[in-house]
Amino acid sequence: MYCLLPVRQELCKRRFFYRQASDIYGGVAGFYTYGPPGSAVKNNIISLWRQTFVISEHLLEIEDSCIMQHSVLKASGHVDRFNDFMVKDVKDESKFFRADKLLEEVMEAKLQTPGIADAQRHEYTTVRNQADAYSQKEMWEIFQKYEIKSPETGNDLSEPYEFNLMFPTPIGPGGYLQGYLRPETAQGIFLNYKFCLEQNSNRLPFGVAQVGRSFRNEIAPRAGLTRQREFTQAEIEYFVNPKQKDHPKFASVESTVLILFHADAQLNAKDPVKMTVGEAVRSGLINNETLGYFIVKTWQFLVSIGLKKEYIRFRQHLPTEMAHYACDCWDAEIFGSYGWLECVGIADRSAFDLTAHANAAKCDLQYKESLEKPFEREVLILTKKSGVDIMKAFKKDGKMVKEFIEAQPQEELECVAKKLETGDAEVQVDGRSFTLTKGLAVFERKKEKVTVNAFTPGVIEPSFGIDRIFSMLLEHVYSARPKDDKEDDKQTRGVLSFAASSAPYKCVILPLDQRIARDKRYLQMLDSFTRELCEQGLSFTSDESNATIGRRYARNDELGVPFAVTFDFETMEDSSVTLRERDTMWQIRLPLSLLGELLRCLCKGSESWQSAFQRFPHKKNSNEEFRKD
Amino acid sequence: MYCLLPVRQELCKRRFFYRQASDIYGGVAGFYTYGPPGSAVKNNIISLWRQTFVISEHLLEIEDSCIMQHSVLKASGHVDRFNDFMVKDVKDESKFFRADKLLEEVMEAKLQTPGIADAQRHEYTTVRNQADAYSQKEMWEIFQKYEIKSPETGNDLSEPYEFNLMFPTPIGPGGYLQGYLRPETAQGIFLNYKFCLEQNSNRLPFGVAQVGRSFRNEIAPRAGLTRQREFTQAEIEYFVNPKQKDHPKFASVESTVLILFHADAQLNAKDPVKMTVGEAVRSGLINNETLGYFIVKTWQFLVSIGLKKEYIRFRQHLPTEMAHYACDCWDAEIFGSYGWLECVGIADRSAFDLTAHANAAKCDLQYKESLEKPFEREVLILTKKSGVDIMKAFKKDGKMVKEFIEAQPQEELECVAKKLETGDAEVQVDGRSFTLTKGLAVFERKKEKVTVNAFTPGVIEPSFGIDRIFSMLLEHVYSARPKDDKEDDKQTRGVLSFAASSAPYKCVILPLDQRIARDKRYLQMLDSFTRELCEQGLSFTSDESNATIGRRYARNDELGVPFAVTFDFETMEDSSVTLRERDTMWQIRLPLSLLGELLRCLCKGSESWQSAFQRFPHKKNSNEEFRKD
Repeated sequence: MYCLLPVRQELCKRRFFYRQASDIYGGVAGFYTYGPPGSAVKNNIISLWRQTFVISEHLLEIEDSCIMQHSVLKASGHVDRFNDFMVKDVKDESKFFRADKLLEEVMEAKLQTPGIADAQRHEYTTVRNQADAYSQKEMWEIFQKYEIKSPETGNDLSEPYEFNLMFPTPIGPGGYLQGYLRPETAQGIFLNYKFCLEQNSNRLPFGVAQVGRSFRNEIAPRAGLTRQREFTQAEIEYFVNPKQKDHPKFASVESTVLILFHADAQLNAKDPVKMTVGEAVRSGLINNETLGYFIVKTWQFLVSIGLKKEYIRFRQHLPTEMAHYACDCWDAEIFGSYGWLECVGIADRSAFDLTAHANAAKCDLQYKESLEKPFEREVLILTKKSGVDIMKAFKKDGKMVKEFIEAQPQEELECVAKKLETGDAEVQVDGRSFTLTKGLAVFERKKEKVTVNAFTPGVIEPSFGIDRIFSMLLEHVYSARPKDDKEDDKQTRGVLSFAASSAPYKCVILPLDQRIARDKRYLQMLDSFTRELCEQGLSFTSDESNATIGRRYARNDELGVPFAVTFDFETMEDSSVTLRERDTMWQIRLPLSLLGELLRCLCKGSESWQSAFQRFPHKKNSNEEFRKD
Repeated sequence: MYCLLPVRQELCKRRFFYRQASDIYGGVAGFYTYGPPGSAVKNNIISLWRQTFVISEHLLEIEDSCIMQHSVLKASGHVDRFNDFMVKDVKDESKFFRADKLLEEVMEAKLQTPGIADAQRHEYTTVRNQADAYSQKEMWEIFQKYEIKSPETGNDLSEPYEFNLMFPTPIGPGGYLQGYLRPETAQGIFLNYKFCLEQNSNRLPFGVAQVGRSFRNEIAPRAGLTRQREFTQAEIEYFVNPKQKDHPKFASVESTVLILFHADAQLNAKDPVKMTVGEAVRSGLINNETLGYFIVKTWQFLVSIGLKKEYIRFRQHLPTEMAHYACDCWDAEIFGSYGWLECVGIADRSAFDLTAHANAAKCDLQYKESLEKPFEREVLILTKKSGVDIMKAFKKDGKMVKEFIEAQPQEELECVAKKLETGDAEVQVDGRSFTLTKGLAVFERKKEKVTVNAFTPGVIEPSFGIDRIFSMLLEHVYSARPKDDKEDDKQTRGVLSFAASSAPYKCVILPLDQRIARDKRYLQMLDSFTRELCEQGLSFTSDESNATIGRRYARNDELGVPFAVTFDFETMEDSSVTLRERDTMWQIRLPLSLLGELLRCLCKGSESWQSAFQRFPHKKNSNEEFRKD
């Protein structure tokens, strides 16, 4: 069905797109270094992401710290629940396994047994597919049922136990303060929701974005970039009124046709469907317009950087996969040598995170909206006299205590009032304790006009795994070409057909040979030309080695550089140069003075290569003469 | 002498340039969050840095991991020597102090004593200035001599002990592998030198850059962004032949005049001097051309983002400050409310780091250069017969063992040969051990033609503290203006006069009032105009609040937005808009259709505001009518 050539690890390593981090020391699984072309492509992806989301959608971008304190990640649920189950070899503690992955492998092996019965096939498949959904107890029962042993030694395995995936680190010299490396960038956004809302003139809806490293101490990091212990996320939290999830720009995207693999289809072994997003939202398949809008924006972004449309689909989470608070969640999956790989998650997380932090930090994160039609209700308030009494009683702290009480929510005041019926009540203000006696704090019930509707915003979260997108992009733009352009040659060499916007360098500069490379006129032309490229913000590279021009073209095709500029003997006379395009391998001849602007237009997409090819003397084969049609 | 207004913390917090991280939880010292305008300015600084260094200097940029393994940081010296001395209150262990900082404070206090004698003043000053240079023993002697006690409690203090400033974290579920958060981005570059050299066609000199987070578990983080526990570095390692440190582009910068505060001047209480870099290098004040070149490039970069020339100086490290292997080191210091603050370090670190990693990782990091005049020398080599014998003896491993022996450096071979004189010799190949017996491995001495000169490259390291530069930039571009533009008003409000290239948003869009904001024609014009801005990559913001237009201008002056575009009732009729510039507060009137291109030119610097002001109908005061001169 699909026939993508996996990018050879060899090319990635040889041209240093990426490789194992600390490779000269042997490296550690799960950590990678991006080399010059890889780092450039990754930066381009991030910069296109900022263009598509932060600038075009007017998001507020923030940059929070990687190290976060315990209380934050306790509230978010990561300290207690961000775990995987592990099992250990009981006789050799250096051998440990991620329980769900081991179970999947064991079931997979059983499924390979020739001639197994249908009932068994069904059972093994079910267990394999649910491997990551079992509780600790269920997992242990299943390990016992199938008598699963330590793979290499055959020894018994321990009961499954929880392993927290966060990297812990102590903060400060006392080591008294427990910190962790953030497992996702999202939490930094929730912590700063209140301050961002202020910057947005206290208006909903609005979105906040963050791009940065996240860290997960994976038990079994995968080969390649798809499950690293350190990775780059680009996350958006789009805060909405939970009752108003329509999106003003939805109409502009609703006719977009996407491949949707909805939960029903997955459960009933059906195929994904092609459907417009408008239809999907109207039929209730996608929960709301804002979710639908970001699904389309995600798709547009992925296509714009060069991923193949037919290899992008959106898979809905099954009810069992979804967190209890989420109302709908879709993963953008991209097809490659790992099969369909989750690269972006787009979830409606409701008000879960803001509520958790508001409770833990004892901080009001509610949104207050003026009501068009105010109404009346009964409230408990401090009597005027009692307010004055408290001000006097606590002297210089009096004002603070009084204002603190007045700012408390109704439930708190009811509590205090109840306590005061039978004795004193303590209040904690600014870290100190104050005792309210019965006669001092007196409450009364009054009618109050309610003019404000307070609620905790819901949130739609598009979350991008930049390294996975990078990795899939390498696969989608890779192809092989016969070596030396001879059709009968069985040896091939790679070409990475990056779009100009994501290519590591926009052009490569090639002096025809060493005589040119040392010519003063070349050096002068080079100086002013590269200055022009720098001013246009067009990155470039050069290859002044001894290799033939054909070999150097090939080397740069392998790097994915879309354009090659050759300076030859004619250039020294008339300042004309040859421009070659990577994918067609066609060439045009033009004055160097026109090249900077042409490259800018070609890379920006305001002129096509076909059009440039027509405008200037050209040839389709390097052996021909340049001609003008 | 200097009169910079410190940027009010209040402005930075209120407009969310930055604030304490996890603020709603109370935060932890040393961690900050950049809000939307701060994050945008910081990203602009980084992007200009990439433009100035990576693109213009053709550097290879890489991206390494933040978590690094023990062996790497052991070799670099960070595990053993990246320490500060601490002292603890012997009765209250929760009170601890950085010994040098406490000593500085105690000496500072003594210096404030009225009427102290000159000899004492000299003594206290000397101790204060050397506080961070004492050994553990010296520090303890000084603490005893001055009877320094725990500041708040008056209790005795412990002997000074070393505290390592790296954040430790265990890697993997076994916790067997000790990791640390990188204390600098530089080490990632040294680890990948070999692979980058390959990408540079094995040619020297070349530079490698990395931008990213670094982490230091400071004992006493300072208020503000200047000593954080997590910060962003942009570092370059420029690898050179240690005997050829001249730079091809030095001539283009040598006439640049800089403020140089050389070591001699510091030691003899003289003032910094103004001098051309050419003169400084020729006189030997600055060690070499490459160092001088990067000092100028650093200065050019700092000035280009908007820092004030007169508040930038280069301070040479004193011989006592400099690492033993460094040959010269200059800090770019920027003046602000903290005095002169080190923001960039430019060091010639010789071959120290590469040598350390080559030894620890047992990996050849030498550069091999073809000699123009080859010469002969005597070498020890395996005899041809012995090579064949070894191939046979170790069967399928034979080839590997033979090639391993042949690739060993001469010293190693001499060792093996020596061992074989008295018995067997073991060699470790690919993690396994092979025994060479006397008869098996036989060496002979032969004359060899040496055609290659091998050496470990030296390195020039410009290292930028991006957060410090950001922080100083805020101070340099800040000024105060009377509120409501009334000269007699004593209240002022801040203006941040960012250069367009570093401004958080290039323009703000303002509908005159709510009637305009809700007008369909406005929404249509807005849609196509913002689309144009997005295409140009010009970031923008809008302010559709109820505030008067004057107040909204002021708000955006405070954010540092250089241009404001106002849509009013006339706009609805003739599509003309008002463009106001932040610093002059002058306004021009022009068709909306011309605005996108004009903004692009103004922000790029290809048209000045003065010129635009002349070209279009204009006014210098908001009460005037627009007129054309």
